[in-house]
Amino acid sequence: MNYLMIFHILGWVIQLEGIFFLPPAITGFCYGEITDALIYLALGVGCMVLGRLFRLRKSSNSIFYAKEGFVVVALSWIVISIIGALPFVLTKDIPRYPDALFEIISGFTTTGSSILTDVEALSHANLLWRSFSHWIGGMGVLVFILAILPMTGGSTMNLMKAESPGPSVGKLVPKIQQTAFLLYAIYLAMTVVETILLLIGGMPLFDSICHAFGTAGTGGFGIKGDSIAGYSVYLQNVITIFMFLFGVNFTFYYYILIRKVKDAFLMDEVRWYFLIYFAAVTLLTTTLVIHGGAVAESIQTVAFQVASIMTTTGYATADFNLWPEFARALMVCLMFIGACAGSTGGGIKVSRIMIYLKQVKKELMQQIHPKRIQVLKMDGKALPHSVVHSCNTLLMTYIVIFIVSLLLICLDGFDMTTNFTSIAATLNNIGPGLNIVGPTGNFSEFSTLSKFVLMFDMLAGRLEIIPMMVLFHPATWKK
Amino acid sequence: MNYLMIFHILGWVIQLEGIFFLPPAITGFCYGEITDALIYLALGVGCMVLGRLFRLRKSSNSIFYAKEGFVVVALSWIVISIIGALPFVLTKDIPRYPDALFEIISGFTTTGSSILTDVEALSHANLLWRSFSHWIGGMGVLVFILAILPMTGGSTMNLMKAESPGPSVGKLVPKIQQTAFLLYAIYLAMTVVETILLLIGGMPLFDSICHAFGTAGTGGFGIKGDSIAGYSVYLQNVITIFMFLFGVNFTFYYYILIRKVKDAFLMDEVRWYFLIYFAAVTLLTTTLVIHGGAVAESIQTVAFQVASIMTTTGYATADFNLWPEFARALMVCLMFIGACAGSTGGGIKVSRIMIYLKQVKKELMQQIHPKRIQVLKMDGKALPHSVVHSCNTLLMTYIVIFIVSLLLICLDGFDMTTNFTSIAATLNNIGPGLNIVGPTGNFSEFSTLSKFVLMFDMLAGRLEIIPMMVLFHPATWKK
Repeated sequence: MNYLMIFHILGWVIQLEGIFFLPPAITGFCYGEITDALIYLALGVGCMVLGRLFRLRKSSNSIFYAKEGFVVVALSWIVISIIGALPFVLTKDIPRYPDALFEIISGFTTTGSSILTDVEALSHANLLWRSFSHWIGGMGVLVFILAILPMTGGSTMNLMKAESPGPSVGKLVPKIQQTAFLLYAIYLAMTVVETILLLIGGMPLFDSICHAFGTAGTGGFGIKGDSIAGYSVYLQNVITIFMFLFGVNFTFYYYILIRKVKDAFLMDEVRWYFLIYFAAVTLLTTTLVIHGGAVAESIQTVAFQVASIMTTTGYATADFNLWPEFARALMVCLMFIGACAGSTGGGIKVSRIMIYLKQVKKELMQQIHPKRIQVLKMDGKALPHSVVHSCNTLLMTYIVIFIVSLLLICLDGFDMTTNFTSIAATLNNIGPGLNIVGPTGNFSEFSTLSKFVLMFDMLAGRLEIIPMMVLFHPATWKK
Repeated sequence: MNYLMIFHILGWVIQLEGIFFLPPAITGFCYGEITDALIYLALGVGCMVLGRLFRLRKSSNSIFYAKEGFVVVALSWIVISIIGALPFVLTKDIPRYPDALFEIISGFTTTGSSILTDVEALSHANLLWRSFSHWIGGMGVLVFILAILPMTGGSTMNLMKAESPGPSVGKLVPKIQQTAFLLYAIYLAMTVVETILLLIGGMPLFDSICHAFGTAGTGGFGIKGDSIAGYSVYLQNVITIFMFLFGVNFTFYYYILIRKVKDAFLMDEVRWYFLIYFAAVTLLTTTLVIHGGAVAESIQTVAFQVASIMTTTGYATADFNLWPEFARALMVCLMFIGACAGSTGGGIKVSRIMIYLKQVKKELMQQIHPKRIQVLKMDGKALPHSVVHSCNTLLMTYIVIFIVSLLLICLDGFDMTTNFTSIAATLNNIGPGLNIVGPTGNFSEFSTLSKFVLMFDMLAGRLEIIPMMVLFHPATWKK
């Protein structure tokens, strides 16, 4: 284990967080929340100093294996969460530290599950920090560092691989640094466009920025008690469209940027993503209309809600907890599917679902025609066996974590639907579940043990499980 | 597709069912239920004639591929169910045919889910037929035919493979026919021993036979409204022990028969099965005691209930629907694990769970030590890649069927726990679920559509999905 290198990278991460504390500090000064602003400023300075201390001794050896990549990514996320929770406690907006930690992990992992019973009571600085954490976590902290810092070749791929979601990491361009930079550039540009469109619709600047952050990271923290329900239909539709767009594999936008529009629309995952989205909207609208909903209103609500759940954002305009049972169950299924790999969304990812279904189809055909040779393909190319294999083991690990988490939080004695959807909502980084943790509910009633279980699940979900498992596996730390 | 051969085998299956109608006919005569007895007798004769007609034209070509194996097994199970439901309708004990079909499929697949609201209203002949169907389905109809009829070599393995549960079919002895015979001999001997032990405990002969059938097939149809709760503690304990024993891989008993006791206890799957059972009993007993249960009584109840759920029998002495939420969730987990491969129990099977967990472990170690070569082993031998692969695709197919079924039965509008556990209980061939379909409830309230979905799930669960999927796949029927 290359400890010096790990400390070095953690140092960068902490210093970066120091810089990230600036926007909430400025917000605080703007809104006259001087105490809050000073706290953010002091923490920012503290991070700069602490981070520098971490980087005091330079590592002569910059070689960095996959194992260290997983460890440093998992540790980075834990460290930024531990520090990121402090302002909530120090400003006394969330007095209990475990609750503050839950809230910020939910932010960084772009989950959007909250323990707050009254979100509007928070200061503007804290509200911005909550939403900003989504934006930071959406594309990833390590990816950001890769984009701005020069690092040595082979090692950086291991960082990128460990932090980016999806079965295989696509490098847009041969150089990792340029790929990371491009990803952040697309990400930033789309966030700015959304902010402007929201401003045009009459949303105040502060609200626009917060919601654009929440949409871009597919996070879902709102700044109002009723999430997005209070805004105009135009604003809701803008958010619908951007939620959907941020759930698309970013390679799609890269292709469009370099004018390979045809290649963009030939991406299997993106086509399936469109298909699943529109199929779900059709099914759910039909269900609501049958149960007496108005057609136009149902379409608009369902389009918003499906985009919100499928991209794992978690904003709400309607309480889908009150929908008919079929609609509720379909929403739960969408929670698991999630968005595209290579987007900011969570869940199992459309491409993995495709790989699973293709295997089922292949297995059946194999039984019917044992001698026919079949190849699993994606985007016209054969899928490497290693990708298929790691998708399969991920599914199994996912199920194991799901079951263990479920049993642990069941100890609190809530009903089975609450428990099941709590795990689904956190492990898939969505936000709201059903019943007690539905769109109008929150996670405050869970015991501290359950909250820690859910925090682990949010991190495991965002980092796609393996880094967290590697971090806590004894074999990692054996000489 | 070798149609003549398929008809030939279906003919044998139908004639066999004709013989199976004799025991309920005799029971009817004994209890003075003359109409019922005559109906069973007439159906028996009808089956003999119909079956003979199916076998009129002999097939010159006895070659039989895997595809045909799956098709004939799936069709056999559907045909015996269609015929097996008739007595319930003709005796007017279950007047609606779809309900009767549900009941008998539940019987043959050893599920034990019932649509009856008052089981004690049935005639003795019908009660015996219900329980007897468990015994027939437990070991398999095709296995029975293999045991008694001489068939050609290679083809028979495909039948055995399609009907026997587990990731790989173990031939006890080199010849299929002898293996099938041995399996039925062990099965019959254990059933007789249980009947005698129940008689010794003062259970009436009729009750003893019915319960022994239900236990042996790990079915779970009771003949009393309160299942097993009304019987003495001794009788409950006898049933506990035999449920547990029938969930063990039958290869274990074969080893003991040929005095390889050490080999028997070295079977990985059996050791894990013991381990999971005792771990679950300990955890659940602790939970009940913490919630105020008496120690001795809790142990006895939990030992029964865990054996019943894990072996997918489904008898009840306590309403675990009323247990604390943690206990309920743990029971649901056990539903999925199921019994050993090569037993009469259902579920995913302990050996598959082992294969999944071993893969998770291997994947993690691979990430930590990428260069170390690792081999998946079971019973000290390397697991063939094909077995691992088919276990993985089975899991995915299983999940797909689970989700589609869940969405379909959600249309009835029951609560999520009822829907989820209904599918779990039928696809794993258990019987009772939670809430409306809990141990004191039943499946009568579901719509006819839902009942057909659940019937499909029961058959898919018993035959481990592939045969049912092959039967309904268009590619099977293309020239």
